[in-house]
Amino acid sequence: MFPLDVDIREVGPRDGLQVEEPLVAADRVRLIEALVAAGVRRLEAAAFVSPEAVPAMAGAAEVVRAVGRPEGVVVAALVPNVRGAEMALSAGVDELTVTMAASEEYNRRNVRMSVDESLAEVERIAERAGATPVDVIVSCAFGSPYEGDIDPDAVRQLADTLYDAGAAHLTFADTTGMATPRRVDDLLDAVGNGVGLHLHETRGTALVNAYAALQRGVRHFDTSVGGLGGSPFADGAAGNLATEDLVHLCDDLVIATGIDLEKLLEASALVAGLVGHPVPSRVAAAGPRSRRAS
Amino acid sequence: MFPLDVDIREVGPRDGLQVEEPLVAADRVRLIEALVAAGVRRLEAAAFVSPEAVPAMAGAAEVVRAVGRPEGVVVAALVPNVRGAEMALSAGVDELTVTMAASEEYNRRNVRMSVDESLAEVERIAERAGATPVDVIVSCAFGSPYEGDIDPDAVRQLADTLYDAGAAHLTFADTTGMATPRRVDDLLDAVGNGVGLHLHETRGTALVNAYAALQRGVRHFDTSVGGLGGSPFADGAAGNLATEDLVHLCDDLVIATGIDLEKLLEASALVAGLVGHPVPSRVAAAGPRSRRAS
Repeated sequence: MFPLDVDIREVGPRDGLQVEEPLVAADRVRLIEALVAAGVRRLEAAAFVSPEAVPAMAGAAEVVRAVGRPEGVVVAALVPNVRGAEMALSAGVDELTVTMAASEEYNRRNVRMSVDESLAEVERIAERAGATPVDVIVSCAFGSPYEGDIDPDAVRQLADTLYDAGAAHLTFADTTGMATPRRVDDLLDAVGNGVGLHLHETRGTALVNAYAALQRGVRHFDTSVGGLGGSPFADGAAGNLATEDLVHLCDDLVIATGIDLEKLLEASALVAGLVGHPVPSRVAAAGPRSRRAS
Repeated sequence: MFPLDVDIREVGPRDGLQVEEPLVAADRVRLIEALVAAGVRRLEAAAFVSPEAVPAMAGAAEVVRAVGRPEGVVVAALVPNVRGAEMALSAGVDELTVTMAASEEYNRRNVRMSVDESLAEVERIAERAGATPVDVIVSCAFGSPYEGDIDPDAVRQLADTLYDAGAAHLTFADTTGMATPRRVDDLLDAVGNGVGLHLHETRGTALVNAYAALQRGVRHFDTSVGGLGGSPFADGAAGNLATEDLVHLCDDLVIATGIDLEKLLEASALVAGLVGHPVPSRVAAAGPRSRRAS
């Protein structure tokens, strides 16, 4: 039931860096180029958000333009609204990502809108995007620290509404570490295995949840180089599933990722240097399992 | 195929603390009492090794005597040789643990003996132990940074030899983070699922490997409160599988552990205070998934 290959969307340059001290556009471009050199074929390059609200994402258009359109690479950008979508489209992105939460309370705190207001915004963005696909990343799809577990049937209903609103693809995020292998199974029972997963290490479960999803044939994963990122609203938040951790697992399971682990670890070392602290990934610290003692 | 319950051996007071600055016996006893209060029913309380070689394990007999024989609790101690076994038996332990490596090179570096010499020592210890069961923890059972992967058939042959030498039970350790779900499957194919696993976080794979083993019906796991511990010979070594991480997973899968997660987190907070730094477990940092925002 494992897939033959997976489609990894690298979100480090956006989701990973947005919680770090701001890097200049040139350094973000350097990171993206290192990721593409490692074999990354889909990446979230930037967020077209207010630079006052998220200083680390200032210069999004500059980043996207400098990256250009590398052969075979899908360049995505996060947009919070129609204005952001217009800027991203005019900078030349291939895919728009939009986040909204399955949790009313989390949505309100994160984007100061009700879930219905966010749904309406998704519809406006999708309309404006035209032929450019919009992937809606549903935060707190497994639950939140406000409501607890969220019923997979409620998530399926939200999914239906989002497809109706024009979402080309859906990604379900475990924003605050509520997912477990059992909950992953339950959600996939409800929404099918064609969706993407965006897993967090809040409770150290990102990799085991990815494994449970792989066993169900899921092919789409968001990961962040080094495991950078994480929700500012999750207690004791750790970062995203590290790209190197998922590649390491897939390599061993002979599931193709298209990514060269050694080159990815170079990109991981690069970003650790840029942000000025070690990345959380333990594969980054220990190296691939093929590494021998010197 | 999941088991109905698991038998968790808590190794924090030995494996976890041995790499930390030494704690006085009274504090180690306090930790053990907190673990027993949380529902731990098997634990490695100490190591009867040279206090010059491992200062953190000085006063092993004092610890074991102070712990006494709590109702329903199996108190184990690590012993490196017959002399250690005699001291542990006279202090009143219920189980002896002995480590030896499936890797010649790791064994030589760790205990300065060949694998054959270690096998002979196991035989002498088991003979001396009489009715007290000896559990041999086979380090580097999946591989090592010296030899790379170790053939599961070679491990099975070593297992046969160890049972012949008097081992009552075997535990296979992923000392340097070479295990993956696929390698766990391969080893269990060779040795059966009645064995124990002692998993490390060197590459962040302890929980996914435990999950793969649970899917195969494995019931015996070594874990360390907070995830303390780790091999001094493993590059970028992170600690053992955290007890709270496994309990958190099992609770969600409705696999009985006998351990109360909230009380276990109290023991984890206690040991963090004693060692003077946060423990690596992310469940310890984030709390159980039932925790709500205040």
